[in-house]
Amino acid sequence: MTDRFQDECGVVGIYGAEEASNLAYLALHSLQHRGQEGAGIVTSDGERLRAHRGLGLVGEVFDQGILTRLTGNAAIGHNRYSTAGESSLRNVQPFVVRARLDQVAVAHNGNLTNAHGVRYELEARGSIFASSSDTECILHLVATSNRTTFINRLVDALSQVQGAFSLVLLTPDQLVAVRDPHGFRPLVLGRRGSATILASETCALDIIGGEYLREVEPGEMVIVDKQGLTSISPFPRRPRHACVFEHIYFSRPNSVTFGRSVYDSRHKVGRLLATVDPVDADIVVPVPDSGTPAALGYSFQSGVPFQQGLIRSHYVGRTFIEPSQQIRDFGVKLKLSPVREIIEGRRLVVVDDSIVRGTTSRKIVRMLREAGALEVHVRIASPPIIGSCYYGVDTPTREELIANRHEPENISDYLGADSLAHISLEALKEHFVDGEETWCDGCFSGDYPIAPEPDAPEHQLSLFEAEA
Amino acid sequence: MTDRFQDECGVVGIYGAEEASNLAYLALHSLQHRGQEGAGIVTSDGERLRAHRGLGLVGEVFDQGILTRLTGNAAIGHNRYSTAGESSLRNVQPFVVRARLDQVAVAHNGNLTNAHGVRYELEARGSIFASSSDTECILHLVATSNRTTFINRLVDALSQVQGAFSLVLLTPDQLVAVRDPHGFRPLVLGRRGSATILASETCALDIIGGEYLREVEPGEMVIVDKQGLTSISPFPRRPRHACVFEHIYFSRPNSVTFGRSVYDSRHKVGRLLATVDPVDADIVVPVPDSGTPAALGYSFQSGVPFQQGLIRSHYVGRTFIEPSQQIRDFGVKLKLSPVREIIEGRRLVVVDDSIVRGTTSRKIVRMLREAGALEVHVRIASPPIIGSCYYGVDTPTREELIANRHEPENISDYLGADSLAHISLEALKEHFVDGEETWCDGCFSGDYPIAPEPDAPEHQLSLFEAEA
Amino acid sequence: MTDRFQDECGVVGIYGAEEASNLAYLALHSLQHRGQEGAGIVTSDGERLRAHRGLGLVGEVFDQGILTRLTGNAAIGHNRYSTAGESSLRNVQPFVVRARLDQVAVAHNGNLTNAHGVRYELEARGSIFASSSDTECILHLVATSNRTTFINRLVDALSQVQGAFSLVLLTPDQLVAVRDPHGFRPLVLGRRGSATILASETCALDIIGGEYLREVEPGEMVIVDKQGLTSISPFPRRPRHACVFEHIYFSRPNSVTFGRSVYDSRHKVGRLLATVDPVDADIVVPVPDSGTPAALGYSFQSGVPFQQGLIRSHYVGRTFIEPSQQIRDFGVKLKLSPVREIIEGRRLVVVDDSIVRGTTSRKIVRMLREAGALEVHVRIASPPIIGSCYYGVDTPTREELIANRHEPENISDYLGADSLAHISLEALKEHFVDGEETWCDGCFSGDYPIAPEPDAPEHQLSLFEAEA
Amino acid sequence: MTDRFQDECGVVGIYGAEEASNLAYLALHSLQHRGQEGAGIVTSDGERLRAHRGLGLVGEVFDQGILTRLTGNAAIGHNRYSTAGESSLRNVQPFVVRARLDQVAVAHNGNLTNAHGVRYELEARGSIFASSSDTECILHLVATSNRTTFINRLVDALSQVQGAFSLVLLTPDQLVAVRDPHGFRPLVLGRRGSATILASETCALDIIGGEYLREVEPGEMVIVDKQGLTSISPFPRRPRHACVFEHIYFSRPNSVTFGRSVYDSRHKVGRLLATVDPVDADIVVPVPDSGTPAALGYSFQSGVPFQQGLIRSHYVGRTFIEPSQQIRDFGVKLKLSPVREIIEGRRLVVVDDSIVRGTTSRKIVRMLREAGALEVHVRIASPPIIGSCYYGVDTPTREELIANRHEPENISDYLGADSLAHISLEALKEHFVDGEETWCDGCFSGDYPIAPEPDAPEHQLSLFEAEA
Repeated sequence: MTDRFQDECGVVGIYGAEEASNLAYLALHSLQHRGQEGAGIVTSDGERLRAHRGLGLVGEVFDQGILTRLTGNAAIGHNRYSTAGESSLRNVQPFVVRARLDQVAVAHNGNLTNAHGVRYELEARGSIFASSSDTECILHLVATSNRTTFINRLVDALSQVQGAFSLVLLTPDQLVAVRDPHGFRPLVLGRRGSATILASETCALDIIGGEYLREVEPGEMVIVDKQGLTSISPFPRRPRHACVFEHIYFSRPNSVTFGRSVYDSRHKVGRLLATVDPVDADIVVPVPDSGTPAALGYSFQSGVPFQQGLIRSHYVGRTFIEPSQQIRDFGVKLKLSPVREIIEGRRLVVVDDSIVRGTTSRKIVRMLREAGALEVHVRIASPPIIGSCYYGVDTPTREELIANRHEPENISDYLGADSLAHISLEALKEHFVDGEETWCDGCFSGDYPIAPEPDAPEHQLSLFEAEA
Repeated sequence: MTDRFQDECGVVGIYGAEEASNLAYLALHSLQHRGQEGAGIVTSDGERLRAHRGLGLVGEVFDQGILTRLTGNAAIGHNRYSTAGESSLRNVQPFVVRARLDQVAVAHNGNLTNAHGVRYELEARGSIFASSSDTECILHLVATSNRTTFINRLVDALSQVQGAFSLVLLTPDQLVAVRDPHGFRPLVLGRRGSATILASETCALDIIGGEYLREVEPGEMVIVDKQGLTSISPFPRRPRHACVFEHIYFSRPNSVTFGRSVYDSRHKVGRLLATVDPVDADIVVPVPDSGTPAALGYSFQSGVPFQQGLIRSHYVGRTFIEPSQQIRDFGVKLKLSPVREIIEGRRLVVVDDSIVRGTTSRKIVRMLREAGALEVHVRIASPPIIGSCYYGVDTPTREELIANRHEPENISDYLGADSLAHISLEALKEHFVDGEETWCDGCFSGDYPIAPEPDAPEHQLSLFEAEA
Repeated sequence: MTDRFQDECGVVGIYGAEEASNLAYLALHSLQHRGQEGAGIVTSDGERLRAHRGLGLVGEVFDQGILTRLTGNAAIGHNRYSTAGESSLRNVQPFVVRARLDQVAVAHNGNLTNAHGVRYELEARGSIFASSSDTECILHLVATSNRTTFINRLVDALSQVQGAFSLVLLTPDQLVAVRDPHGFRPLVLGRRGSATILASETCALDIIGGEYLREVEPGEMVIVDKQGLTSISPFPRRPRHACVFEHIYFSRPNSVTFGRSVYDSRHKVGRLLATVDPVDADIVVPVPDSGTPAALGYSFQSGVPFQQGLIRSHYVGRTFIEPSQQIRDFGVKLKLSPVREIIEGRRLVVVDDSIVRGTTSRKIVRMLREAGALEVHVRIASPPIIGSCYYGVDTPTREELIANRHEPENISDYLGADSLAHISLEALKEHFVDGEETWCDGCFSGDYPIAPEPDAPEHQLSLFEAEA
Repeated sequence: MTDRFQDECGVVGIYGAEEASNLAYLALHSLQHRGQEGAGIVTSDGERLRAHRGLGLVGEVFDQGILTRLTGNAAIGHNRYSTAGESSLRNVQPFVVRARLDQVAVAHNGNLTNAHGVRYELEARGSIFASSSDTECILHLVATSNRTTFINRLVDALSQVQGAFSLVLLTPDQLVAVRDPHGFRPLVLGRRGSATILASETCALDIIGGEYLREVEPGEMVIVDKQGLTSISPFPRRPRHACVFEHIYFSRPNSVTFGRSVYDSRHKVGRLLATVDPVDADIVVPVPDSGTPAALGYSFQSGVPFQQGLIRSHYVGRTFIEPSQQIRDFGVKLKLSPVREIIEGRRLVVVDDSIVRGTTSRKIVRMLREAGALEVHVRIASPPIIGSCYYGVDTPTREELIANRHEPENISDYLGADSLAHISLEALKEHFVDGEETWCDGCFSGDYPIAPEPDAPEHQLSLFEAEA
């Protein structure tokens, strides 16, 4: 899968480190794959919060002057991924507000499933929203809570929302991290000397020389302040539903997510694919970069040599235009180039992590055939996607998914492949489910741990976003 | 006075005009002198609001594509003037929110005197502010009002604030204009064909070929919708306190403000100055541009010839730097150049509209002497400024005002002038007060119609503004 | 005349001043009216030249860091005015090249009349041009000259060009200023302490506290280096032909150009107009800013009161768009606003410096009538323009000039005026010609001191400018 | 090797294609790896040339409007790579000039070895240079040639320069491509329908669906015009010296350069390395991306499993800053992340394409050890670099090369590796030299086909580049 969809957002929190803004900046760089639309950092010097947010990559949003002005030993940061049409500086997190006279900043990964209803209720009672983000609901619930401390108000607020949230919050004197009771989205705890670090993935610990301690548990709230680290579990216990797609596509291969190596998972699924769906072929070719570890596993298991038959360009940026003259398979060619000498006259196993709409896969197959492939066998390191995600992954509608548009037996023909095989959901579960562990596989199974909110388009007006 | 302080903001509202955004754009251009920091326009097509706001001059914020996307027959617009350190896109108006499930946009000229207290109360009850502007208080009061219609909630909200407000508001189906009961800041009503126009000054009507009808009265609320124009007076009656400084400095000379020609006022004060404080001189020289009408009046009355002895540069922009080498009277020289041939060997009456800190006036006097003036007599078309403004004018603190730093008899010496005279407050009143009319002259007299709010710095945090 | 045409360029040269770049920067700011398209400064530290050039106003092109990097005690600078379609960084001066192994920078005001022929000859012999500017011809002639020193090569080069040139040149150790033998364009010599200053106008001396010494004479070359200032007159003597339009429109009123005060000239022409073309009127209204001194002279002579009946906006920038809805007299209204209270019911004498195409004047007359003027009598402080300029002024073609499009007796009708009068060429000459002095008045008389070059469009390709 | 040095530039030429600018744009995108500093396209519509050039990536320099304005059926394009301090729009190619009255545009890959001397001679005879590029010498030699046609003048000009040049030139009616007699830099000929395509690499043909025909031969000049394609060989024959580094590092793996597959070359060298320098290890880890094909070859030959132990970030752009806090091995960590689960407790063979200064390799070794590697054996797919390149590759000075700073036996220690081996020059030659083929391996052997020009710093002034 080549960037056809992406997770929404990465978060980081740091407490007790000199130049916390610098560490947050590096951590956000390492989490850049989780969101490229915008980034922000908020710091605390113990008395007040300072913020900077902007649209673009982390390296574009910040410069040394800005980081220097973000003083303090505590910081939170956010990488934003956004769906089309909602791009706006007003939605870039962390949000910073005064809620019930407390200064508080928040950064959120995940998606609330009752946001429209909560927002409608809040607006009907007099709250005014400044963004179109579901995250802002949490702040208004904190602000309108009658409880007596910030932590109590936060627990009260989060008890009223449903869905996925891995949150870091910063007040002038506290860093708070929370993961929803199902644990949909990842959040890890680490340390660097005496500093406490929280982040979406362990790769953020690695870049700053931090040490990985453990996951923040589903339903856990971690509070870090001058008294040290406190952990509470204020919510009713729910079954764990870690997002399996983090291992298939989102997380960086060098991360340890939900307690497992992502690279290992992908390599293992590749090995499983080779066992379950063997094929007589000359070479294994990955769709880079997300298909590479599974392709290596496939090659390892099958003994079919691995070759880099598709070269990925590093220069496809946001400003690239499609000139008027039609070039066949234009978009894919900008990003991937076949190595004819490798492909020509050979039978290929092409390994990718997933198929969503199928249009890109189809172009890749055609491009490989034009480069001389004798046979193209497509192997996918995940089950067919049959449903949207309601917990923070930007998937297309059900109707756009190729698994819902074609009968299973016809998809290989649609792609122009000689054969097509996915890893089965059962095989995937066998790999991932280990004892009592449970995962969210709603996009593959249609079994959703939390029912999605009925669409409420009349509530979806985002007025502050109404820029022409 | 050469741009040492400025009014806060200009507003415009249009109902019933095709391409309302285009008219709003031109009107804002004509009101550009009221604020150069930012500008915005919100339109309604009868169903939804569309907005665009930006930092910079009107001509920089908008282009044809943006105006075209701002569809609809109703629009409001705003020019923002800002004090240092608060410059931010988040404070650029019109604000657009959903308040109590109503879409509403607002643009405000003036300053609320109880904003800190109102904000504190609102925050304590759970409202979250998105800007550091006092205007946002009004929106939260509307949103949290229990009354039954938008107009009733607006009346309820405005009954709880004090100070100066000339407001235009836009909902999908209504344009509303309101002026505070004292009528501190101007607001006029006009028409253009079947369209209704509201604006801070009549110059906005002129540029779009509109006709001036009358002032919006102090305490009046004008509601324009499909049923036509309705006027109500929902607030307790207060004495009128129109800002006299609009006539002395703020309004454009071609405007009719508070029912009088601004040019006429200035010319008349110049004639009064010549009568009360005559001086034996060779030429009258204005400090352009705001001193020119008074200087013409002085020349007319005294018979002393008027000469353009100071030439104003049109190219002093925001980016101009002061290079490290010291140039005497640098800042003034960038803006004003003496015409030596006019000045040399002559006795000058120099007429300006006002003196605030005195530093610029001192540099002008020195520059004129260096250009060969034999005598420099300074005449000021307003009384000495002794107090700050609490109703929307960005004046320095009391301590910075020259009238509070020097004894009256020493100010002429400080300026290096041969003589100095101001129009007296009594003479000014005699000109302006006509029957029962009353004015706000707090900055000259110290008599403030509404007591200023005690400083509440602990409430002044503006968190959304915390950009590093 | 409201910016309908403009002189091409201003120049400045400084020798022997610490922080010469800072002084050049300020001087260019004071000469900004001579060109707003681009600006540049080149400095010498005695060994090498450093340059910075950019598109935009002086205040936009430079910042403190750039000025600091432009080290050295000598500098030249340039303001560029450009005709449409030729805007490009490559044409922004000063040009800096190595010509015949000498480093040399040049800044030019004026227009060569044999540039196409010279360029063709140079290209045919192997020279490659980097710009589309006639100024570059001079550098190639220097580079291909066989003479033995830079000064000799420069004299050789300038002997081969015809037309208007006021030049400043900088080598690592010399500052050179030259004025063409006719002296079309101005160039003045001044000093500031021990530093030597050369500039297009005396206003550049004023802003940096310099003293005006004298004009650089027509045909004079001034060389400033460690040995001091040397003056030579290497060209055959020609009759002086100073551009009379500098006094009518181009130069700033506070400058002394060609040895005379510009303000005085304009005021005197206004007095002459009142004598020769009196009219029974209530007020004199200038078209600001260039018509103001003549209007003051008219008022002074006639006794008709002067009133600022048209207010000029300071905010009309380059980015202003005309929205799609037609506003009558749109462009003029953006820039000028009538003061109805002054105009209504009155008979006006409207004084402007010149009429070119007549379209703007027509709009002004209509705008004044709509503001209630009873009569509008137009008085122009220059003769009718009947020809283009070939010496550096960007005039329209003959066919576009109103004086060539309508019979003299019909122009007043075209403008919608009650009467129209120009100062006659004879009266103008009487004022300006003083003893043996001669002026270039080709645009009024059709008498051109140097015949223009036949058009050679096939030579006019400017390849380096071919940016799409 | 991770971007420590890079080739200078890519070129493309197109003749006979509708929307030639669009094809050039895509071709330049595919050649982006050859230069990221700037890009330009010049088109011909048969009568005149149109150009656009800019600093930045191809996708940043062009948009649809610009491409549409670049009309015509012929085009040339250029990607610029630049050494530090010379970055300037004036150096971005293609250059467009009028040389001897011919319009001509040129794009150049390579480096002339006698440029300083040629430039000095040209300047002494009166030529003025607009850039600091050696390419401009060619244009001046064409312009000052006495021969009778453009092609003859071009041959005359190129006969006077030495060194490396793969050139495309465009006149209104001809496209010309030339490769220097040694054939240092690549240049290929292809077609797309009836259109002729020339490009630095075959990957440019692939992206636009073109067909690869053959190399332009060393010393060959290809002329394409209405009469079709003509090939001449106007220069004395020289031994072929194709740059071996194109195969080791520069060219894209999917290109066929100098008639051979780049991917094949690298894979084969990897296999050779495994044969010559075997090591007992657990996994083979490439330094991505340029070390990957050789690592695959190593794994294939040795049977040691290939693992993606280092993950490359796609988000390291030009604006990334190093925050003040010291992070060990900061720069490498931004770009490469180790996969601990793969590395920990394993013995690694790390394969890279080359070592230049050694600083990055040292950081990579340390990073791998910190991730738990038991042993790190470094294998390099090229011989030690002992000399600079004079033919167009931006290598550091001899003194900076690690092979010249340490004794061979100490370099492994310096890197912190357990062992280090390079492919030997002999083995490399054995692979590449096939019959009479010769290569330039000056950077490995010190044998330079053309002696470098003695340094001539006094000639290196680049005056037009003197921007502060």
